[in-house]
Amino acid sequence: MPFVQITLLEGKSKKTVSDISDSVHRALIDEFNIPEKDKFQTIREVKPGNLIFPPDYLKIPHTDDIVFIHITAKEGRTVEMKKKLYAKITSLISDSASINTDDVFIVLSENKEENWSFGRGIAQLVK
Amino acid sequence: MPFVQITLLEGKSKKTVSDISDSVHRALIDEFNIPEKDKFQTIREVKPGNLIFPPDYLKIPHTDDIVFIHITAKEGRTVEMKKKLYAKITSLISDSASINTDDVFIVLSENKEENWSFGRGIAQLVK
Amino acid sequence: MPFVQITLLEGKSKKTVSDISDSVHRALIDEFNIPEKDKFQTIREVKPGNLIFPPDYLKIPHTDDIVFIHITAKEGRTVEMKKKLYAKITSLISDSASINTDDVFIVLSENKEENWSFGRGIAQLVK
Repeated sequence: MPFVQITLLEGKSKKTVSDISDSVHRALIDEFNIPEKDKFQTIREVKPGNLIFPPDYLKIPHTDDIVFIHITAKEGRTVEMKKKLYAKITSLISDSASINTDDVFIVLSENKEENWSFGRGIAQLVK
Repeated sequence: MPFVQITLLEGKSKKTVSDISDSVHRALIDEFNIPEKDKFQTIREVKPGNLIFPPDYLKIPHTDDIVFIHITAKEGRTVEMKKKLYAKITSLISDSASINTDDVFIVLSENKEENWSFGRGIAQLVK
Repeated sequence: MPFVQITLLEGKSKKTVSDISDSVHRALIDEFNIPEKDKFQTIREVKPGNLIFPPDYLKIPHTDDIVFIHITAKEGRTVEMKKKLYAKITSLISDSASINTDDVFIVLSENKEENWSFGRGIAQLVK
């Protein structure tokens, strides 16, 4: 159910992009308890100039390696679960894709369970 | 008012893309009662590897034809209206664009009526 | 904290794109009271046909110059602040980038303060 949109600068290797994608998914499985198969993502690779970020913010420096991760998920997770999700995403990306933890930017948008259709025009999450 | 973001694999014909776009819009007119002219959409055509989806989920198989439809609309529609919207979008796409109903993935994000400006810097939906 | 996604037709000059980006940021600083350094944006330049809009809506005409500005920000701003934001974004873009005020389309999506991580896997906005 989460819909994940990942934006980063073009030029990264296929393996790096794949590692980032897999890291986000693994963290969602571990911390948001989503099913293994529930992996719906888009990757957006943009040219320099089209990814805009400050050299530092909140005392955290940023580089061209910055990855914007925008997750849309149904509501219901606690603040504690969200904190664990961010920590897990960030550490997994840092470990697998050699991206500094400073460069993982995450935004979570929440909606209702009735706001999803996974095919066949059915709202599968509505009881 | 809805803002519709459609993501699909590059390589589809102009007609197919147009049929998908029109199907979503027609369904929004019919089921969410939006005006005919209220059509604001972006199409994102991505290369293979940048559209990530499972071979099947909730017993529904997916193929490279999968279309991600992300609709942002103001809140206020009932669950029943949403269900009808998904069914209509999916059947219209299937009928016009020869895409299997399994491959229509829909996410709806809702916001407030004061969160829209259609030009001139005015929040037109605020009474 | 806001995450700003700007979509426009390809072919605009670097200066125009930069002026649009800076206008949105300046308006957010002035009207939403965000810090100067809090500038996280993506620019999407799309080919003709992939930006879909009506020739006019609510009696406002639109041209190929249309700019879709999608802002995700934490909740808490008043309707009055939002109205001022739209007016400021639109006038700044019109002044600096020579885009008609008719062609500035703005959508605001809101989420919770716990839904942001600016690096290091920390939810920095949670007290």
